[in-house]
Amino acid sequence: MASIDYWFTMGSTYNYLTVMRIDAVAQAAGVTVRWRPFRNVGALTGATQLPFLEGTAKMRYMWQDIARRAGARGLPIRLPVTYPCASAVRANAVMLIGVREGWGPAFARAAYPLWFGQGIPNGGEDNLRAALAACGQGAAADRILAMAESPDLLAALDDETAAARAAGVFGAPTFAVDGELCWGDDHLEDALHWARHGTLAP
Amino acid sequence: MASIDYWFTMGSTYNYLTVMRIDAVAQAAGVTVRWRPFRNVGALTGATQLPFLEGTAKMRYMWQDIARRAGARGLPIRLPVTYPCASAVRANAVMLIGVREGWGPAFARAAYPLWFGQGIPNGGEDNLRAALAACGQGAAADRILAMAESPDLLAALDDETAAARAAGVFGAPTFAVDGELCWGDDHLEDALHWARHGTLAP
Repeated sequence: MASIDYWFTMGSTYNYLTVMRIDAVAQAAGVTVRWRPFRNVGALTGATQLPFLEGTAKMRYMWQDIARRAGARGLPIRLPVTYPCASAVRANAVMLIGVREGWGPAFARAAYPLWFGQGIPNGGEDNLRAALAACGQGAAADRILAMAESPDLLAALDDETAAARAAGVFGAPTFAVDGELCWGDDHLEDALHWARHGTLAP
Repeated sequence: MASIDYWFTMGSTYNYLTVMRIDAVAQAAGVTVRWRPFRNVGALTGATQLPFLEGTAKMRYMWQDIARRAGARGLPIRLPVTYPCASAVRANAVMLIGVREGWGPAFARAAYPLWFGQGIPNGGEDNLRAALAACGQGAAADRILAMAESPDLLAALDDETAAARAAGVFGAPTFAVDGELCWGDDHLEDALHWARHGTLAP
C-alpha cells in the first residue's frame, strides 16, 4: 500500500488544517500515513528563518488565510489565537508517544480545536489533559505526561527531528514520499497523488 | 465584470508559473486581471524576510517544486536557474510600461522562458531586447528601455510598490480581491473564485 511521511509540529498553525483531515483524505485515497512529529521548526532551520514574525504582513496574512480556510471547512477558530505556543515541544513529546501507542491522531484532533476554538494552547497542561481524556487516555494521563519528560523520549524526539532535517524538511506540515517533499496543507493532495502514481496530478 | 489585482515582481521564481497561465485561466473564469508589478520583495518586507536564502533547505525545495510543476505544465526549465536576477528592478520598470501600453503580459510570457529555459535572466539587456522583440516591440526597444530609466517611471514604480505594501502584499505572486489576499500561484484559483462568489471554493 502506498504511504507518505507526514512531518509536523503541534506548534504549527497551518498544521491545524492538516491534522483535522489527513487521515480521512488519505484513507479515501488508499494511502497510509506515518505521523512524524518533530521538536519545532526552529530546530530545523535556525532562528533566522522562523516562518511568522510578530507585526509582519505575512503574519497578518497567515491568520486571515487560516481563518477563512477553517471557516470553509467548518473548523472552530476564535481570533486572536495564542501564538506561539509556549509548550509546543511538550505537545510533540506526547504526540510521539501517541503515535507509538496508536492514539496520536485522535489526540491531535482533540488538541487543536481546544487551541484554536477555545484559547487553550497545545502543550499546556490543560490542553494535554483534556485532549488525552478526549482520545480515551484520561486514565493514563499521569503515565503519559511523565514519559513525555523522560530522557529516552526526548532523545527519540531529537532523533526524529534530525531525521526531518536530513529529509530536507524546513516547515510544517510537510509530506514526504519517495524523496519528494510537498510542503503545506494545500499540497497534501499532491503528495497523495505522488504516492500512488509517482507524479504530480496533471 | 469581476476583477483581481495581480501583484508580482519579474524577479520572483514562482511567478514564472503564474505569468504563463494567468490570463488564460482568468479569461476562462470570466475575471479581469490587473497586472501590477512592484520593485522587489525586499522593498516590501525588508531584507530580513527574503523568501529564499542560498544554502537553505527551503531554497532547495523551491527549485525542486518549481521544476516538477513546470514539467507538469510543459514549461521549459533548465537547472540550475540563475537566481537572484541582478536587474529585476529594470525588468519591472519595463513591465510597468508594458502594462500601460498593453504589451506587458506578452512581454512577461516571452521573458520568463528565456530566463528559466535558456539561462538569460529577466532584466538583463539580452533578455529585455529579446522579449520586447518577441512581443512585437522590437522597433520601440530603445524608447522603452530609455523610459524605464526615467525618474517619472521609477517614481511610478515606487508608487506601485508602496500600494502593494499598503495592501498587505509580502511576496509574489499575490492576488488581491476585495481586501482578501491570496498568496502563491497555487492560490490563483482561490482568488478567481473569490472574485466571482466572495468566498473560497467549498
